[in-house]
Amino acid sequence: MSLTRVDVATPSRPYPILIGRGLLAERAHYPAALDPARCVIVSNETIAPLYLERVQQAFGGGLREYLMPDGERYKSLDTCAALLDYLLEQRLGRDCTLLALGGGVVGDLTGFAAAIFQRGIRFVQLPTTLLAQVDSSVGGKTAVNRPLGKNMVGAFHQPIAVLADTDTLGTLPQREFLAGLAEVLKYGLLGDADFYHWIRREQAGLLARDPALLQQAIEQSCRHKAAIVAADEREAGQRALLNLGHTFGHAIEAHLQYRDWLHGEAVACGMLMAAAMSARLGWLPGDEVARLRELLHSLGLPVAPPAGLTPAAMLEHMRGDKKNLGGQIRLVLLDKIGQARVVSDYAAQALEDTLHEFCHAQG
Amino acid sequence: MSLTRVDVATPSRPYPILIGRGLLAERAHYPAALDPARCVIVSNETIAPLYLERVQQAFGGGLREYLMPDGERYKSLDTCAALLDYLLEQRLGRDCTLLALGGGVVGDLTGFAAAIFQRGIRFVQLPTTLLAQVDSSVGGKTAVNRPLGKNMVGAFHQPIAVLADTDTLGTLPQREFLAGLAEVLKYGLLGDADFYHWIRREQAGLLARDPALLQQAIEQSCRHKAAIVAADEREAGQRALLNLGHTFGHAIEAHLQYRDWLHGEAVACGMLMAAAMSARLGWLPGDEVARLRELLHSLGLPVAPPAGLTPAAMLEHMRGDKKNLGGQIRLVLLDKIGQARVVSDYAAQALEDTLHEFCHAQG
Repeated sequence: MSLTRVDVATPSRPYPILIGRGLLAERAHYPAALDPARCVIVSNETIAPLYLERVQQAFGGGLREYLMPDGERYKSLDTCAALLDYLLEQRLGRDCTLLALGGGVVGDLTGFAAAIFQRGIRFVQLPTTLLAQVDSSVGGKTAVNRPLGKNMVGAFHQPIAVLADTDTLGTLPQREFLAGLAEVLKYGLLGDADFYHWIRREQAGLLARDPALLQQAIEQSCRHKAAIVAADEREAGQRALLNLGHTFGHAIEAHLQYRDWLHGEAVACGMLMAAAMSARLGWLPGDEVARLRELLHSLGLPVAPPAGLTPAAMLEHMRGDKKNLGGQIRLVLLDKIGQARVVSDYAAQALEDTLHEFCHAQG
Repeated sequence: MSLTRVDVATPSRPYPILIGRGLLAERAHYPAALDPARCVIVSNETIAPLYLERVQQAFGGGLREYLMPDGERYKSLDTCAALLDYLLEQRLGRDCTLLALGGGVVGDLTGFAAAIFQRGIRFVQLPTTLLAQVDSSVGGKTAVNRPLGKNMVGAFHQPIAVLADTDTLGTLPQREFLAGLAEVLKYGLLGDADFYHWIRREQAGLLARDPALLQQAIEQSCRHKAAIVAADEREAGQRALLNLGHTFGHAIEAHLQYRDWLHGEAVACGMLMAAAMSARLGWLPGDEVARLRELLHSLGLPVAPPAGLTPAAMLEHMRGDKKNLGGQIRLVLLDKIGQARVVSDYAAQALEDTLHEFCHAQG
């Protein structure tokens, strides 16, 4: 199985995504200009024991290491400030490079630190989760959370390279793996019906983490994301399609205070809600919603919001989402499988009915 | 006396600087698209009682107001986080605009908050100090301080407009006014000998805060800054010239932990040290250094670092400056009056001798 390369042609900085096995330990896959004496590997306490040595090995050792605690609640300004102070203590300047080794939390936080340290330094994404490999490490969205909302503080800052080493997926806990598959599915739903149906067909092999299938799934996901990001780096239009399932999903995450559910799980449920609302509006056939529900269910992903989340509370959380303009709740809905659309002029009743349908679907 | 307009043609966003009397209270001078319901005036407890009402008046009242404490030590990530949380509490989205009313601290912090709130919102600079009007409000450098260094965390984020209302200079404490004059002088020294000599000739009128002379000085300063920023928005080259006096100056400020001396005072002393070092290297005639010292002295600006700052300590602080690449201390020195140059390959002895000359010049 060979190495795959996807190029991301953003206006601010073009860069490659490399996808394959054993990438982390080989120097040749990293940007040629990296000076090990001016690199810092940023990782967390869970990932570091598993993969950090491979990165050191690629460079013959000696890179600085900075470990943050593991968990979404550490994706904070405080953690970011601690990393920035570490860079200052080490007397690193504008020419240093951060290597973000981990999942979405490490990547988002490290990218944001790179965006604001001395007004911007370089960074490399070394994503070790499926979700990070197909989504968060690509496209330059960096962020930290605030108590009042997820990803409310951040910057657009592109990495200089992304190395998605699929060997790291072997140790990924099953729930995290499935949450990543939800984001893979998203690319099919929003823009590629063939890919969606391929995932449905290959679900058994994907669930078995077949390396060749995974590499194909990651490559296809990255190609979709790269195309959208290149056309709309700063989310002026089309890029908003990537938020399919996210407005519903963020409301679930906010309700749970970013605990218990994984991001991809919330997005999975959110995509189903978006599909159901699209059906209510008469855009999507009802049987497609049923098929999606079945697929999510067989992938072990949630198909209803957590117990205790009322329709009113969910609506309130959705109103706080940063994608809203002028107080309207913007949603990404489906015209059909493989075609999404950003809307804010839908019938409000359809949203309310959808929330009632789903939020009353459980105890 | 008429309104002056200087256009800043940065690649990321072109915007106007308006300079004149009575600008703050007139709606016509603000960007036409501003929606008062989505604007927040950010100011501090000293400036707000003096000028905030004028901004409200321009819009017929009703704009949100956010006041931070006054002082450089509040130019922090903590203050920024509090402002960001306020915006979230107010449920403001990506379409809101911040109006930064105050000096450099308010402008830098508000601009940085605008850069990172929801990955970037618009802001307007309403500078009320001479220093902010001629320097910090123009060019899109935003930042906060960390304990280990000034402006170490920040972003390039251009305002959508700058309104420099010269009426606000009437209430400016004398020391702050003089510190601003130091930055005006900087533009002459680094790129415009005629302007430098004009300042020397007109110093009595400038010290008397003659409105027509001040407007000319601000306009000329902004033209210089705008030209440099347009050519080099992200400080890849030429923009570094604007740091004349700043590497020495930051070392003084760091030593004093950003207390006691104003930024412009530190820059004044730093410019003299840069001139003196340039003379040691044989680039600048010694009598020009003497004339500069005289001018600074007659403007009431410091011509020596604070007592207690040793050459070794100063060198150590200079090494931590973010303008250094690869461990070298980069300096802006003078080929002649009106012509600066960025250098890092000077004879180290010249720097050491300069530090010894100045740091031993006082008790």
